[in-house]
Amino acid sequence: MAAVTYKLIKQCRQSGARLGKLITPHGEIDTPVFMPVGTQASVKGISPEELEAVGAKIILGNTYHLFLRPGHELIREAGGLHKFMNWNGSILTDSGGFQVFSLSDLRKITEEGVHFRSHLDGAKLFLTPEKVMEIENALGADIIMAFDECAPYPSTYEYTKRSLERTTRWAERCLNAHKNTEKQSLFGIVQGGTFAELRKQSAREIVSLDFPGYAIGGLSVGEETQIMYDMLEETVPLLPSDKARYLMGVGRPDNLVEGVIRGIDMFDCVLPTRIGRNGTALTSKGRIIVRDAKYAHDYGPIDPECDCPACRNHTRAYIRHLLKAGEMYGLRLVTIHNLRYLQRLMAEIRQAIMDDRLLDFRDEFYAKLDGNRP
Amino acid sequence: MAAVTYKLIKQCRQSGARLGKLITPHGEIDTPVFMPVGTQASVKGISPEELEAVGAKIILGNTYHLFLRPGHELIREAGGLHKFMNWNGSILTDSGGFQVFSLSDLRKITEEGVHFRSHLDGAKLFLTPEKVMEIENALGADIIMAFDECAPYPSTYEYTKRSLERTTRWAERCLNAHKNTEKQSLFGIVQGGTFAELRKQSAREIVSLDFPGYAIGGLSVGEETQIMYDMLEETVPLLPSDKARYLMGVGRPDNLVEGVIRGIDMFDCVLPTRIGRNGTALTSKGRIIVRDAKYAHDYGPIDPECDCPACRNHTRAYIRHLLKAGEMYGLRLVTIHNLRYLQRLMAEIRQAIMDDRLLDFRDEFYAKLDGNRP
Repeated sequence: MAAVTYKLIKQCRQSGARLGKLITPHGEIDTPVFMPVGTQASVKGISPEELEAVGAKIILGNTYHLFLRPGHELIREAGGLHKFMNWNGSILTDSGGFQVFSLSDLRKITEEGVHFRSHLDGAKLFLTPEKVMEIENALGADIIMAFDECAPYPSTYEYTKRSLERTTRWAERCLNAHKNTEKQSLFGIVQGGTFAELRKQSAREIVSLDFPGYAIGGLSVGEETQIMYDMLEETVPLLPSDKARYLMGVGRPDNLVEGVIRGIDMFDCVLPTRIGRNGTALTSKGRIIVRDAKYAHDYGPIDPECDCPACRNHTRAYIRHLLKAGEMYGLRLVTIHNLRYLQRLMAEIRQAIMDDRLLDFRDEFYAKLDGNRP
Repeated sequence: MAAVTYKLIKQCRQSGARLGKLITPHGEIDTPVFMPVGTQASVKGISPEELEAVGAKIILGNTYHLFLRPGHELIREAGGLHKFMNWNGSILTDSGGFQVFSLSDLRKITEEGVHFRSHLDGAKLFLTPEKVMEIENALGADIIMAFDECAPYPSTYEYTKRSLERTTRWAERCLNAHKNTEKQSLFGIVQGGTFAELRKQSAREIVSLDFPGYAIGGLSVGEETQIMYDMLEETVPLLPSDKARYLMGVGRPDNLVEGVIRGIDMFDCVLPTRIGRNGTALTSKGRIIVRDAKYAHDYGPIDPECDCPACRNHTRAYIRHLLKAGEMYGLRLVTIHNLRYLQRLMAEIRQAIMDDRLLDFRDEFYAKLDGNRP
């Protein structure tokens, strides 16, 4: 029995979307779920208690960052990532594949692995599927991801094909190298860029390796949104229905609704924390740039529908002042609001699946936005 | 009856230090008390709930900063500073005197007031005692401070004398201009630099104006610590025993102990928040530079004696990692620890007064430090 299992509860009779449970050594998680990102063993500015209070049950850690600093051996020594950061919920670590390709310098990909330089100090480093498994085993997350190549967008058909085939070989090496199967489950990653045929090839190859869960990687990397939806429609039907399906790096509210409709169970993204630090709040009526002058005298909450500490305790005028004045507490408030907004959105999505009306919910979602940016 | 009153409960039979209560429209405060500084309507990085949880009953706001941004009229419109920042405890606002002299550019002092340029945008501004009262009345703090000149250190005897005499005339103008005496109490400020004779002159003049409380300003501005203690010994005996005595801008732990022994009831300082953001923690054994390499593998709390969230929930190794990685949550944790440390220290000081053993407590305090920096 895998450390992490997925239980399908029901499918929406209107949309086919899945309501389920992900069961990990650290608890049960209602799906579809959004996972906040704690890149460096901290969801930026937010305490573990606050994360729990906004309703997060599972968060992400970034293998690449934690490998560089403080180092996976230190985290192993500290008792693993859960204990190191004092988070008692579940954790998923990515494989570092995306970061190696987006953050590091001078990378060189070989069949064996990737040579690159640290973005922190320029140190020469080498990651292989086996090394990534060693790191992720040391970090001890409930769900760990296979080491993949996230091909740049755009890439040619030929490059994307060679890349996904190497990702399949690396996935097999990850399966063989993963040591801690009793407490950690290794998910495979489907690649294939924006080519339907290659997405299908990758899905078939990765599924044939029999992972306890599957991710779809390499989307939301610059392509048109419709292309992402098309790729999901090509890929998801090839994934087994008794395993969780995770769309990596996606968190824009409309993408969450559309992703769930296309059969996705798990999402992660830095969007709520990143735009929060930039003073932008997510609401059901679209984004609010809280630092805008028009909110200077606005003594209402960011979002009257929200029950987060920022909305319960503070006004737009106050939070705008904090942001303008460069006060940390302002960033903290908008971040926590955004995290809560996405947790509430996912809860509404789950309820709509339960009620067999997710397509109606989508219509209402877009109607509320009224053309504003989601 | 003044809006804010002081009630002397007892004096330490060993040291003469005072145990008392400050009663404001927002509650009762045990004294001696340390007041965290919330310069721009926020104690940096910390929520009002967290402030309450560390035991703070009264905080400071800075008139100069709030006048510049967001402006006192906006805060008046928001219902005052308490409501604007959602702090239900007491607030004291300084008069902006110190900031005008330390932060602004191109200041020019006349009998009428001070011309200066905003440190934010260079705008030409003019503050008078009457204008400062208008601003502080708009902010609505429980305790407001008279507009004074904090003479630079070192200053000549002649300059300091002229300056303190002008400060006395300004204090009288503040008394006449203060409009909201039912809800706000105006405290006078004793100046006089490092000259015992001038400190006494200022104390006599300011006390003759009959304020509901008295502050000692212009100390801890660069002079030797012993000079500060000497000035307190010259000044405090001239202050009436039925009013609170506030030593402005002082917060180093040893200065708090020594200040209380010399009859001080109230303190404020940016020290716990400023050094917290710098990764330095206050403990009874001296300061800890949490980012030091020696704590990389230290899985104990910052301070085993502390009950704050940082010490209850996280290790030195984790907090060091956050600080090294530039994570906001690290600054937040060290800041909250430092705030809690000073609240605990003040509670211990109050207990030692109650037990008539504050001089013994001082000995123990220094012994625990064992030569380390307090």
